[in-house]
Amino acid sequence: MDKPPARERLARAAFDLFNERGYEQTTVDDIAERAGLGRATFFRHYRSKEDVIFPDHDRLLDQVRDRLRSASQDTPLAAVCDAVRLVLAHYLHEGDLARRRYALTSTVPALRDREIVSVARYQKLFREYLAGQQSDATELHAELMAAAVAAAHNHVLRRWLRGESADPLREVDAALRQVIVLFTPQHREPADGTTVVAFRTSQPLDSLLPTLQHLIETAPH
Amino acid sequence: MDKPPARERLARAAFDLFNERGYEQTTVDDIAERAGLGRATFFRHYRSKEDVIFPDHDRLLDQVRDRLRSASQDTPLAAVCDAVRLVLAHYLHEGDLARRRYALTSTVPALRDREIVSVARYQKLFREYLAGQQSDATELHAELMAAAVAAAHNHVLRRWLRGESADPLREVDAALRQVIVLFTPQHREPADGTTVVAFRTSQPLDSLLPTLQHLIETAPH
Repeated sequence: MDKPPARERLARAAFDLFNERGYEQTTVDDIAERAGLGRATFFRHYRSKEDVIFPDHDRLLDQVRDRLRSASQDTPLAAVCDAVRLVLAHYLHEGDLARRRYALTSTVPALRDREIVSVARYQKLFREYLAGQQSDATELHAELMAAAVAAAHNHVLRRWLRGESADPLREVDAALRQVIVLFTPQHREPADGTTVVAFRTSQPLDSLLPTLQHLIETAPH
Repeated sequence: MDKPPARERLARAAFDLFNERGYEQTTVDDIAERAGLGRATFFRHYRSKEDVIFPDHDRLLDQVRDRLRSASQDTPLAAVCDAVRLVLAHYLHEGDLARRRYALTSTVPALRDREIVSVARYQKLFREYLAGQQSDATELHAELMAAAVAAAHNHVLRRWLRGESADPLREVDAALRQVIVLFTPQHREPADGTTVVAFRTSQPLDSLLPTLQHLIETAPH
């Protein structure tokens, strides 16, 4: 059987050592040695020890940006909901590695902070996209939408990382639907003309129509 | 006239030096010297150079937590909207210092990241409060609400920091009202009985009612 590529071997060695010795106590040399590779090889693949833990964020951010650029969804919000699925899919593809990173970021404040910052970068990208697309929406609206999409994604991702979600793809669809409903106006502003008010009653329609007419005719203008 | 207290003199000296020489090029000794104080005095007031820039976040977070603990608003969301005003008021009270920090965090990535992390801490506090208060709400709902409140606050704060908002207190009220409207359900689920659909038309009511009756009677069940 072929060995895994150097990049992956280094990542797995790093996570093993962080678990065994702690993050602060592990050096780049330790990682390279455990992976059976040299220090120079380490630095061909990663810029730093921290980088081993978050290797693909820049590339993933570019993919999200590309996806938004070529979006064909009906609304900018739907496009952002589609693009955020790329982020979730990336973590799911990482599998065990993503869960080990989560365990590590929960105990090392510096790593947890870096994770938070990387989430903020997606949210900023979404916000700028939404503000640029929706000439009729206010900047506040774009900000609220971007925050909601990021929150829905994080909610499902966190559940999956904790082993609480068996079907994160289905869960993220449901969560994003909830975001879209949140931002779908449920009523319109009044306009000129006759307004029929929506209501519900147990009366039959025959007895309803005269009452309706009476109510509308006697209502204050 | 009395000199400002040592803590404030150190902060102002630090910001002056960061502007003149850059953040990385300024040392703790430089700051103490500029403030006319000793290195030991610096470390009685701040733990590090970075700390001079973000001195009060822990205390402010405690205040927000206390405010939520003693909240008397009608809904948990209203309580969170009230508590986030403490954060805005803190920045407004800082005045010029807050704006100088914003200018600095825009150019020094490490400081910008720390700012993002501190915002995430408020959002987490809000999320946990909302999830704990609302037995009927899902965790996702709490997460969406917390993200929206933080986003509304950040939107107004950022505008004020950039000099785009003359009345941030009024703006934040309007932005938070928008958040509350977002999470106020606008319609109910269907129940048994006759349903009258809401619509609008330029036809007079007399010609409308027969059409309405016909449409409802011939609609598929």
